[in-house]
Amino acid sequence: MNDAVSITRDLVRCPSVTPADAGALGVLEGLLKAAGFDVHRVTFSEPGTADVDNLYARIGSSAPHITFGGHTDVVPPGDESAWTIGAFSGEVKDGYLYGRGAVDMKGGIACSVAAVLQYLQDHGGKPQEDGNGSISFLITGDEEDVSINGTVKLLKWCAERGEKFDHCVLGEPSNVEVLGDMIKIGRRGSQSGTLVVDGVQGHVAYPHRASNPVPDISRLIVALSDEPLDHGSAQFQASNLEFTTVDVGNTAGNVIPGQARAKFNIRFNDNHTQESLRQLVDERLAKACGNRIRAHIDWQPSNSNVFVTKPGPFTDLAVAAIEEITGRKPELSTSGGTSDARFISSYCPVIEFGLVGQTMHQIDERTPVADLQKLTRIYRGVLDRYFA
Amino acid sequence: MNDAVSITRDLVRCPSVTPADAGALGVLEGLLKAAGFDVHRVTFSEPGTADVDNLYARIGSSAPHITFGGHTDVVPPGDESAWTIGAFSGEVKDGYLYGRGAVDMKGGIACSVAAVLQYLQDHGGKPQEDGNGSISFLITGDEEDVSINGTVKLLKWCAERGEKFDHCVLGEPSNVEVLGDMIKIGRRGSQSGTLVVDGVQGHVAYPHRASNPVPDISRLIVALSDEPLDHGSAQFQASNLEFTTVDVGNTAGNVIPGQARAKFNIRFNDNHTQESLRQLVDERLAKACGNRIRAHIDWQPSNSNVFVTKPGPFTDLAVAAIEEITGRKPELSTSGGTSDARFISSYCPVIEFGLVGQTMHQIDERTPVADLQKLTRIYRGVLDRYFA
Ligand SMILES: [Zn+2]
Ligand SMILES: [Zn+2]
Repeated sequence: MNDAVSITRDLVRCPSVTPADAGALGVLEGLLKAAGFDVHRVTFSEPGTADVDNLYARIGSSAPHITFGGHTDVVPPGDESAWTIGAFSGEVKDGYLYGRGAVDMKGGIACSVAAVLQYLQDHGGKPQEDGNGSISFLITGDEEDVSINGTVKLLKWCAERGEKFDHCVLGEPSNVEVLGDMIKIGRRGSQSGTLVVDGVQGHVAYPHRASNPVPDISRLIVALSDEPLDHGSAQFQASNLEFTTVDVGNTAGNVIPGQARAKFNIRFNDNHTQESLRQLVDERLAKACGNRIRAHIDWQPSNSNVFVTKPGPFTDLAVAAIEEITGRKPELSTSGGTSDARFISSYCPVIEFGLVGQTMHQIDERTPVADLQKLTRIYRGVLDRYFA
Repeated sequence: MNDAVSITRDLVRCPSVTPADAGALGVLEGLLKAAGFDVHRVTFSEPGTADVDNLYARIGSSAPHITFGGHTDVVPPGDESAWTIGAFSGEVKDGYLYGRGAVDMKGGIACSVAAVLQYLQDHGGKPQEDGNGSISFLITGDEEDVSINGTVKLLKWCAERGEKFDHCVLGEPSNVEVLGDMIKIGRRGSQSGTLVVDGVQGHVAYPHRASNPVPDISRLIVALSDEPLDHGSAQFQASNLEFTTVDVGNTAGNVIPGQARAKFNIRFNDNHTQESLRQLVDERLAKACGNRIRAHIDWQPSNSNVFVTKPGPFTDLAVAAIEEITGRKPELSTSGGTSDARFISSYCPVIEFGLVGQTMHQIDERTPVADLQKLTRIYRGVLDRYFA
């Protein structure tokens, strides 16, 4: 039976703790080949990182082309003896399928595969009766760690082969409390930096001969933390700057230090680009410094820009499919941390919808079996509407 | 010849890098015994510290009793090959006597011994013709490092023997640029503490679920640094609070930390006691925290309270002796770091006057030979006036 529960179980039984594959992609390869997909296994390498397996599978050769994205790698199980059921057993107890990756996101992948296989079976093995349309799977084994030999390179590899995607559904656990409560249609960008304040070292007994960077970096931290970067946008909450650490490391209690450093991270919305954001913060810093404080920001390279899939026909059909099965109208959200959607968004509109994230990355990660069945029906509803 | 230059040289030739004595106290013991002093060598011990030699020598048995304080230990010479003349040679070149301790403070001790020996020689071996008066030396070998087995214990030992001091001259290098420019008549107290701010750890993408202690400790640092503790007093400059470090140590760039800590040191004047000062800062902290910020101060134990020898007959006679020899009217200062005067001040009024401090603790520490001769004449002038 190629239903979502058994596919999830088969995937969970592969202990694919990132970056290991442990047979997970082989499970998908077998199912998709049998359904007529053209399946590619691609391994990417880079000095200093582990080689990572990826899978790209497509059926059909023309537009419209919908791709289901995902990752088969999982985070480590933690203390395996603390699990109610073995972390890699994939067994069902009291209506829940347990296991590392059950919700993030082997379950999501299994539902999309099950939905696609059913859809094709019901449509003579083709996306559309007229022979048009394509369905593909874009699955990586490198999402949970460095994300270097995964989706970024797989997308580039696809582009070089002439693959063109029209829309993507990424099956990450997007729901907060209950299936159907949230679609993620974008993410804020992320930009980190280090604030460096140069003072003049001296002895605490002679402060007039020194310039203490500690109160000065404190003034700058307050100034940069307190002034809002914006007040949100149509699809996004307000951008936010958080200082994550401030460190001087001076162990001499009678010495005024010569330098202080603080690190911050900004989650920014579509009011900004990385470039305009850096300029804005640099300007605010200069203003807060005045002529007295000597400070600068070392900006950290970032590959995490803001993106959004604007509400429209594609999000509408996903919402309709979700409402039909769950009775809930999902929130179109842009909150939360990063995912591979940030990379896919450079190639085509992408939405994230999967299982409920509550237990992800925890001991006893689990999903209701009923959610696996409903999510499969939702994905089927997406396909029905997409190719209608 | 028991002149200051040869006594300084003899002392410098003992490499008494703290806590070693290397024969230095023996040099003084020989000179003072020969002049009729009752000399005691006292060794103090404490677990975890080196045993330290001390010397107490007194001539006369009644009031008025003036004592000359000092330390024969010195800081390490640093790179000895960088010295113009061997760090422990005590030789004179171009009118300067070179060597570690030349100004801090073997030179000062030598001048006081030379002045006392001359004075006694000129007065039939007695402080006063009527048989009254006492002169003593209170010399330790534990000032430059931990100051545990030195002056504190020697003063207690003296008190237990019934010794009573009326006035003390401590021959530390008190002058800033030229002999006669400064007498130190007191020191500010020193009090350190650690400011601890408790927040709530979280993910930078979800700041509303966390409480970031970094901007909050910054606010508190600014508040405590900016509000003056006082505006000085008759003998003292304003008290001052300096933050010396702030540290979070969070290496995870996507995590809002749970706690932040900052250390500070306060140099305080006679508007405060340690107790009233702690209370004042605790109150200001509570005000700056309001109902929102959770913070407290861990106060560090301190044995460094404020003290001052108020201007009066004793400082007047020192000023007169200095003016007579140098033509300068010394500033009565309470600035600078700590010395053993903070301990002596619990037993009798103390002033610090010695050589010029410019080269102390440096490569090529040295004093003009002329200053040794003048300082000897100044101490002699103090004795003449004290017993007149
Ligand atoms: Zn995931
Ligand atoms: Zn000294």
